[in-house]
Amino acid sequence: MRTVYVNGVYTSEDQAQISIFDRGFLFGDAVYEVTAVMNGMLVDFEAHMDRLERSMAELDMVRGFERPALLTIHKTLIKNNNLQEGLVYLQVTRGAADRDFDFSEMDAAPGLVLFTQAKALDANPLAARGQKIILADDLRWGRSDIKTVQLLYASLMKTRAKRQGADDVWLCRDGKITEGSSNNAYIVTHRNEIITRELSTDILHGITRASVLRLAELHQLKIIERAFSVEELRNAKEAFSTSASGFVNPVVNVDGAVIGDGQPGHIASALRSSYVAASEAAAV
Amino acid sequence: MRTVYVNGVYTSEDQAQISIFDRGFLFGDAVYEVTAVMNGMLVDFEAHMDRLERSMAELDMVRGFERPALLTIHKTLIKNNNLQEGLVYLQVTRGAADRDFDFSEMDAAPGLVLFTQAKALDANPLAARGQKIILADDLRWGRSDIKTVQLLYASLMKTRAKRQGADDVWLCRDGKITEGSSNNAYIVTHRNEIITRELSTDILHGITRASVLRLAELHQLKIIERAFSVEELRNAKEAFSTSASGFVNPVVNVDGAVIGDGQPGHIASALRSSYVAASEAAAV
Repeated sequence: MRTVYVNGVYTSEDQAQISIFDRGFLFGDAVYEVTAVMNGMLVDFEAHMDRLERSMAELDMVRGFERPALLTIHKTLIKNNNLQEGLVYLQVTRGAADRDFDFSEMDAAPGLVLFTQAKALDANPLAARGQKIILADDLRWGRSDIKTVQLLYASLMKTRAKRQGADDVWLCRDGKITEGSSNNAYIVTHRNEIITRELSTDILHGITRASVLRLAELHQLKIIERAFSVEELRNAKEAFSTSASGFVNPVVNVDGAVIGDGQPGHIASALRSSYVAASEAAAV
Repeated sequence: MRTVYVNGVYTSEDQAQISIFDRGFLFGDAVYEVTAVMNGMLVDFEAHMDRLERSMAELDMVRGFERPALLTIHKTLIKNNNLQEGLVYLQVTRGAADRDFDFSEMDAAPGLVLFTQAKALDANPLAARGQKIILADDLRWGRSDIKTVQLLYASLMKTRAKRQGADDVWLCRDGKITEGSSNNAYIVTHRNEIITRELSTDILHGITRASVLRLAELHQLKIIERAFSVEELRNAKEAFSTSASGFVNPVVNVDGAVIGDGQPGHIASALRSSYVAASEAAAV
């Protein structure tokens, strides 16, 4: 039984509850972060908290939390749950109030929920065998750069992928890939260029994305930040995704068609190794 | 203190809680209905439950609730809270499970939450003075026909409207109005034609919309179901919105510009009166 954190209290997961009037429940009015844990330590904690503050600011959630207090909660949950490898999930909601679309007069304290999930991150089987993905239209709202809990469409499409025997979905807007269900998307061309969509309101500003692009530069790989088409994806030498809990995961099959030689690509595999090493070294 | 209903239990509103692992809280994976109450009776109850079932089916929520049981919960809450006029809010979630985008293996029971809100529906001041609205781009997801709790954008824009001294927002896609923050949108031309966007995945299939269009036909008014532009709205003779808890509410001002003569229009007012009378007569 996990210990979780809910609005100031550490409690058992089966006792962990929030009000039915919480706006995260009634309006999707909440943002979240997922921070990887390796060897019991947090990967990129500061960057996740920076992004949390940005998400809150974009939604006019003015009353935040002190970062040292958030770090303490993360550390306490890792310790109490004896978490060696996995993730810490954090969700901030605007708080609980009688249901009203208009929150201009609202004076409630924001809600804060954290819990851990144990997960094999380094030994992820997808890294060895590569992901099969399907494609779907991107019907999400227009601010996918804000990490809100409005994840229903991504969840529906991820589930569709699983039911079809695939591992994940990549979403397409106007014939170009935006991103995966909960990860950023990349191709590697036959000239060894890494192409990934530029940052905008269409995609999440991935923290692993930023780290991996820095590592790719260190490897003297050419990076092009622009949208790529479905056809470019089909003709790519390699494809891969990045996320906080997935690290770097190769893609070997799209809608049943093989990418490259159908094996995890060399560049994806090299970036994964570099990322794991750098993350372990920098974890707090 | 209200009595509310949460997953099989009637409880006090300050004790009403759901698990932090409920997918309504973590993924926006929940649908809802709001049924008006007049004279202690439910307006259009069957139509709301029909739409609830449709929303659930669209999201592959297979395990539903028996309608007589749902009616009993509605009636019990109305009685226990001595509700004469207002609404009953109902939310169904996919249930609680450890956080995972993929729900294909999930075997949890769906969650069910209901609560009442007292509200003056007939004597709504907006009916007498007319609404001031602002316009905003429609950035919602591509399935606004499914009544999910992914309401953050509508909530943000409604709040913006209030902060600007307006009453509501109407959303625009490609220069055409889709709908209001939580209501359908109409104009009346100088030829007394009522124009409202046709049903599609872009808008909610309003139950009040269907009722009001039936009443308009009885009044021998011409109805055209098509998208109308911002310019058509500005030049309209009248404008109005419909919703379950707002009934029919005239719009008299858009982004600071007067519509028609700046007073609630005759057709909107007549439709409101007809709707209130018909609803009271048919309530259960």
